[in-house]
Amino acid sequence: MIQPRTPPGTLELLPRDQLAFQRMQQTIREGFERFGFLPVETPVFEYSDVLLTKSGGETEKQVYFLQSTGALKEGKAPELALRFDLTVPLARYVAQYENQLAFPFRRYQIQRVYRGERNQRGRYREFYQCDIDVVGKDTLPLAYDAEMPAVIAEVFRALDFGPFTIRINNRKLLNGLLRGAGADTPEKRAAALREIDKLEKAGEQKVRDGLTGPEIAMAPEAIDKLLGFMRVGKGDPAVVLAELAKLDVNDELFKQGVAELNTVIEQVGALGVPSGTVAIDLSIARGLDYYTGTIYETVLNDFPGIGSVCSGGRYDDLAGLYTKSKLPGVGLSIGLTRLFFQLQEAGKIKPVENPCAAYVTIVDPELGAECRAMATELRQAGLNVELAAEAGKLGKQLKYAEKVGIRFAVIYASQEKARGAVQLKDLRQNSQRDVPRTELAAAIKSTT
Amino acid sequence: MIQPRTPPGTLELLPRDQLAFQRMQQTIREGFERFGFLPVETPVFEYSDVLLTKSGGETEKQVYFLQSTGALKEGKAPELALRFDLTVPLARYVAQYENQLAFPFRRYQIQRVYRGERNQRGRYREFYQCDIDVVGKDTLPLAYDAEMPAVIAEVFRALDFGPFTIRINNRKLLNGLLRGAGADTPEKRAAALREIDKLEKAGEQKVRDGLTGPEIAMAPEAIDKLLGFMRVGKGDPAVVLAELAKLDVNDELFKQGVAELNTVIEQVGALGVPSGTVAIDLSIARGLDYYTGTIYETVLNDFPGIGSVCSGGRYDDLAGLYTKSKLPGVGLSIGLTRLFFQLQEAGKIKPVENPCAAYVTIVDPELGAECRAMATELRQAGLNVELAAEAGKLGKQLKYAEKVGIRFAVIYASQEKARGAVQLKDLRQNSQRDVPRTELAAAIKSTT
Repeated sequence: MIQPRTPPGTLELLPRDQLAFQRMQQTIREGFERFGFLPVETPVFEYSDVLLTKSGGETEKQVYFLQSTGALKEGKAPELALRFDLTVPLARYVAQYENQLAFPFRRYQIQRVYRGERNQRGRYREFYQCDIDVVGKDTLPLAYDAEMPAVIAEVFRALDFGPFTIRINNRKLLNGLLRGAGADTPEKRAAALREIDKLEKAGEQKVRDGLTGPEIAMAPEAIDKLLGFMRVGKGDPAVVLAELAKLDVNDELFKQGVAELNTVIEQVGALGVPSGTVAIDLSIARGLDYYTGTIYETVLNDFPGIGSVCSGGRYDDLAGLYTKSKLPGVGLSIGLTRLFFQLQEAGKIKPVENPCAAYVTIVDPELGAECRAMATELRQAGLNVELAAEAGKLGKQLKYAEKVGIRFAVIYASQEKARGAVQLKDLRQNSQRDVPRTELAAAIKSTT
Repeated sequence: MIQPRTPPGTLELLPRDQLAFQRMQQTIREGFERFGFLPVETPVFEYSDVLLTKSGGETEKQVYFLQSTGALKEGKAPELALRFDLTVPLARYVAQYENQLAFPFRRYQIQRVYRGERNQRGRYREFYQCDIDVVGKDTLPLAYDAEMPAVIAEVFRALDFGPFTIRINNRKLLNGLLRGAGADTPEKRAAALREIDKLEKAGEQKVRDGLTGPEIAMAPEAIDKLLGFMRVGKGDPAVVLAELAKLDVNDELFKQGVAELNTVIEQVGALGVPSGTVAIDLSIARGLDYYTGTIYETVLNDFPGIGSVCSGGRYDDLAGLYTKSKLPGVGLSIGLTRLFFQLQEAGKIKPVENPCAAYVTIVDPELGAECRAMATELRQAGLNVELAAEAGKLGKQLKYAEKVGIRFAVIYASQEKARGAVQLKDLRQNSQRDVPRTELAAAIKSTT
């Protein structure tokens, strides 16, 4: 006998939880569609040379390679690998269908991605990402950077997990500051960004150690100034922007970053994002190297321990490895599996009602055909209905209906037939009433 | 530069086609939920020992094995493999969560499966399967065998690809006939079933050759009789059942099969399956060895070349490899990817309207903020809306909206502002009219 078990790092749910998961997924989908994004799905595997472009950083080291039985026997090097994010497949997709797509190209993609992570609680090897991106040809207006927070605000309002904060920063601003602080090469600035990214989790002293280390070798006074920026550059956008305007930093990149941040914050308001939802945070850096302008993180105020639930940013060139066209873009990603798991652990996932409205029991073998016909009528009236297989004990049938979470039981035995009625039992409220058969569908509909 | 390309055997769609694909998927999902099936998703990969149980037949030879970068370097044997169907994961799932599930357990699963097929047109290495199964504990009433055609009928009615025929047969009946015809061991009968399965595609002579061959060695007169059964045992259920009742076959298994077929056909009618939709066909055998009773195939009458679009059957024991419990079941599967591809080739996939109802243009830079606010108002009224990024040429913006298939364009420039109106342009009908701003959402909703 083989032990039935799932590999670690996967999330498998019982049907009722799966319903709740799908409701979240559907809410996110509807939020994306609210802003006119269209769906794309890509194959779960890509050619290894397409996928492994050295642009994925750490995640490339965690790739799952694929081999068919035949290739494995022949000892061939794996030609295929599972995607580790939805960004590389997007880049490949846009380059591949460039001539058939309308630009700016706006797509959403809700699919699973795969990472050969070490086995740890809360780390997934298979998880859903829900991504949107807007990709331009040659240029992409800054207005799309302002659209992202609007989509985040709509999605998390609809998900209804309490207040949330969208933290916005700008890489140019940050790079300008770092350049001013003595990080005079792109490599040093990238390293410094990775250090700053640890600020919230590791604290100032750790970051300070990293910045003074041999790789970056920033001067202590410059670090003081930088960390000072991080402390004040946090919170209400109007306040932070006013502080930034006062600063005398003579760096073009910094100035451009501040200007971009001003434009984004201004437009975000017009797009219906409630004030108080957006904050500037100069200390968020996002690890990924390819962001070049606006960057985002989102935290649920009541669940700071979850960390960022929706992150993204602006990049200059999506698909330089696959096409000569310059394709700048901006996007964001929700790690749905981890978010669901964490909120479920916190008891915040509300149970979802079984979409099946009624269970038609069969008690009297003589009336089986009538009960079947009744279930069919209810279905034809647009109701989801489960039907007992054959005549059996009513108690057992009601117990089953309750266990799977169906609200109404329909009972039609000889007594009901004699009365010319159908008994409709509300299993949630533990009440029952007689309903004329012709009004049964309407009676169920009126309460659901 | 790396050539952007997808591996062969995958189906990747442009966004408008993806919408059409998702509509089909949603129709199938709703059909399954109409009968009270609940969703399950399983990980795309399983432990190799769980997956490769020698029960998958040919498909097991086409498995994709998975290895992380680390495991590959260490030269380890692959521990994980991609699922090749949804039946083995179902068996593992039911055995694993047996104590938490309500029986009969009714689940639907719509996910992709993977087969390392040789590269051929129309053969997929990654494709969607849409499965339902009812799994009982110890026993499962025959009524569920009658429910399957009812689900098929509902799904294919809703998919709206013209008339279809659900062909029903019973393995017991077939095995009884084969036993009577001299196939006196289970191995011979299994081999004979595989031959009979080729009848429609290969013709009588090929099947005759196979049945007389050394493996089965059936006598020519027995084959004549058998093929005679196949010829008459096809078509209107009432007629075929009447023919079967006249036969003098003294085999218990055969009799049981006939009795089951009678019950299934009788109940199918009460479940709302239109007469003329169901046919008995004694020549359908289904390749898979694990079917033990009722079996189904479904053909679209206008597209016989596609072959069976929905197949399934009854099995005695789902999960004997993982649990001591006896879990009989009945299920069916729709191969969605292939079905979509074939119908698209035949020009039968109707284009789906962009779920984005309106495109809000920006023509006058002075009115950008007002246009953004207008888009926000429309979204808050529940409409899906795309917004131009910044002021630009109207013609270019309308061209974009048309290209992505958005029906309405909203135009608000200084002339409209002077008139105190918004111009609503119907890009499909090439007409426009003035609408008061407060009535804009209602005007769009009334036409969608």
